[in-house]
Parts: sequence; structure tokens; C-alpha cells
Amino acid sequence: MEVKVLSIQEDILGANKEKAARNRDRLDKHRILTVNVMSSPGAGKTSLILQTINMLKPKTRVAVIEGDVASRVDADKVHKLGAPVVQINIPGGCHLDANMTENALNNLSLEEVDLLLIENVGNLICPAEFALGEHKKVMLLSVPEGDDKAYKYPLMFTEADVVLVNKIDLLPYLDFNITALSQAATGLNPGVKIFPVSCKTGEGLEAWFSWLQDEIKQMKDHRSS
Amino acid sequence: MEVKVLSIQEDILGANKEKAARNRDRLDKHRILTVNVMSSPGAGKTSLILQTINMLKPKTRVAVIEGDVASRVDADKVHKLGAPVVQINIPGGCHLDANMTENALNNLSLEEVDLLLIENVGNLICPAEFALGEHKKVMLLSVPEGDDKAYKYPLMFTEADVVLVNKIDLLPYLDFNITALSQAATGLNPGVKIFPVSCKTGEGLEAWFSWLQDEIKQMKDHRSS
Repeated sequence: MEVKVLSIQEDILGANKEKAARNRDRLDKHRILTVNVMSSPGAGKTSLILQTINMLKPKTRVAVIEGDVASRVDADKVHKLGAPVVQINIPGGCHLDANMTENALNNLSLEEVDLLLIENVGNLICPAEFALGEHKKVMLLSVPEGDDKAYKYPLMFTEADVVLVNKIDLLPYLDFNITALSQAATGLNPGVKIFPVSCKTGEGLEAWFSWLQDEIKQMKDHRSS
Repeated sequence: MEVKVLSIQEDILGANKEKAARNRDRLDKHRILTVNVMSSPGAGKTSLILQTINMLKPKTRVAVIEGDVASRVDADKVHKLGAPVVQINIPGGCHLDANMTENALNNLSLEEVDLLLIENVGNLICPAEFALGEHKKVMLLSVPEGDDKAYKYPLMFTEADVVLVNKIDLLPYLDFNITALSQAATGLNPGVKIFPVSCKTGEGLEAWFSWLQDEIKQMKDHRSS
């Protein structure tokens, strides 16, 4: 028997876009660089956010929106570092959207924020389809997930401005070809930046911090011009 | 500032249930034990399925339905082992549903199948909400994802009959407390079976094969009674 391939197209609501554009205008007005952080469950989003707050404070005032199906364990970790944080719980939901983001923005003191990190729900599919009003989309792919993920979840790789290949400390124990991953990712998205990092050991994170600081600077320079 | 927790309830369509019940009747009639295999991307669903086909054939005739957003890489791997396989691609979708499953069943020779393994889309959220007509739900949680996942994705742990904790070969390199995971999982779902395994080394898989063979036997015995 040959392999049979069935293709089923589902409609996706586009009504989210207008609200996302309004969020973006609001964030622009306050000159808050806003980054939508996405990945599979357990790929290291929270670790990246905690490392980033620790590295950039106190010069850069970082705020965080935490999106989860349930629990506030990540928000509590961010809160311990002294950063303002809003937890959004979405029972039965699988991604943040622009409405939820607006709701969270209403609960932050925007005049006191330089960088807003939005940790999306752990999911490689739906979050890629819903703009929140962010300036940049960042995805983490962790080494244990395998180097074939760009073929299986192409939209996430197409949408991302930056791909952080996390948990490179595990490379000696796994069959993961970082060149193959990079080729697949840049094939889908020629302009994507790829940073191999370990949020556990800190290896490679300086490239991420440097990219982020450049983006924050551009946002601020725009204000003073 | 205190942590603010916003709760947003979304409606989930229940229309899937009736169709799932019809699929289940059809599978019962053919005495095909049907298992819905779910996990995050890259947790090891395909490796588990390939190991299971290799272990159980030729005594048990295994067929596979592969669900993916894009690509047919997993279906091709199954096909190489000689098992009948149907690939379902769902652009823009994030889970299989009962309609897609019916479509796939129409493309299999059901009288030639003892065990049907359905590999759901890599996602810890939405697949838990949609019955397909399966007899058993199995989830894989891989060690690199972390031991806190039951708190963040409770429905998947509540729905699962079996949790396979995969990639235990990586335990020496990671902070993963298998007792903590087991306590959280059984707290949500007291009857759940938990099997620590490595689909890479084969460690622990005999408990999974043994459980599966018992379930297949019960299904067959029911036919002859």
C-alpha cells in the first residue's frame, strides 16, 4: 500500500489583525520594544526571559506578559526578579491573541517600560498565526526537539525574526545537525537570524543581548529624532 | 507591583463527540485497538511508533495515521517498515479531530488491522480536547521538557491513560525529578500509568509493549466471547 496524503484546509480568523495594529500603535507611542517569544513547551522561554531581565536591568526596564493555559509558576519567577509581570491564563486556549494582549497592556504602567517580553503559550503552531502588536517575533527551538522541526512547523520559522537554538549544552548527547536546521530555516525565511545558545550555561547569549540592545536603541533613537 | 492574573475562557466546540463515537463503533466492530499518541513537538511519538511496529510485527498487524501541519517525513518512516499508513496534513490546524480520523479510516483496510496508532499533531494543548474515536490516549513527556508540565498543561495529563516519560537516557544531564512529575500526574489523574522509557536505547519499553499486548488481547478476547 502506498502512503496516502490527505490535505485538510481550515479557516483561520483574520479579525485579530486590526486589534494587533492598535496595540502596536500604543507600544510605538510609548517607545516600548515588544518581543513575542514562542516555542514548544519546555524549550526554554522562561529561562531566556529570566536571563534577559538579569542581564539588562537596571539600565533597561523590562516588563513581561506571561501566557499559559494554567498556573502562574512562570509569572512568580519573573516577579521574584522585581520585573512587572501580568499572567494571562487561557483555559482551553492554545495561543495569545491581540485582545488578551490589550487586556494585559491595560494592567501595566507603560510609561515605566523600555522592553516588553511576551511569553506566548507553549505551542509551535497557533501562536505563529496571531499577531499581538509586537515589533519582533522570536522563537526558541531546543536541541532535544530535533533538527527536522522547520519542515513540520514551517509557519513558525517563516514568521520568526530570530531563531534561538537553545540547550546547545546537550549537543554532545544528541543527534542534532545545526547546519541542517539553519539551512532549513533560512530556506523558509532568508532574513532570519539564528543564535545557538544555552540558557542554562549562558553560552551564546551575548549575541542575543547585543541584538536586543540594538533594537531597543533604534526604538529610543526614533523617539528623540 | 503584584502579579496580576487574568483569566480568559474560550468556548470549545463539542460537535466532535458524536462523530468520534461513530468512529469508535466502527473500530469496535473490527476489534482494532486504537491508541491516540500525543506530545509536544519532538518528544518522541514517531520513535515510539517505529519501535512498537518493530516489536509487535508480524504477530500484530499495526496500521498508523500520521497527523502533521505539513510534511510526510513521519509517514515515510512508517511506510519503510511495511506498515499501512495514512498521512493527514492540516495547514493552519493544530490537532486531529474525529472527521479527519474518519477520512483516514476510509483509506485503510480495516479488516487487516489489529492495532491502530494515531500520531496526533505535536501539541500538548488542543489534541487533548478532541476525541478521535480511540480506545486509549497515550502521551509522551520527554525529560528535556521539564518536570513541571503537569501544572501547565493539566488537561493532557488528566485525559491520558498512559504517560510515557521519554528520553530517560538524558536524565544524567538534566534537572528532572521523575518523582515530582509522577506525583503531579497522579494528583491530576489517580489511575494514570507512568512508564519511564528511552525510545533511543530501548530502556523501559518492555512495560509499554506488555501493557499494549494486554489491551490488544482484551479486545480480541471480547470478539471470541
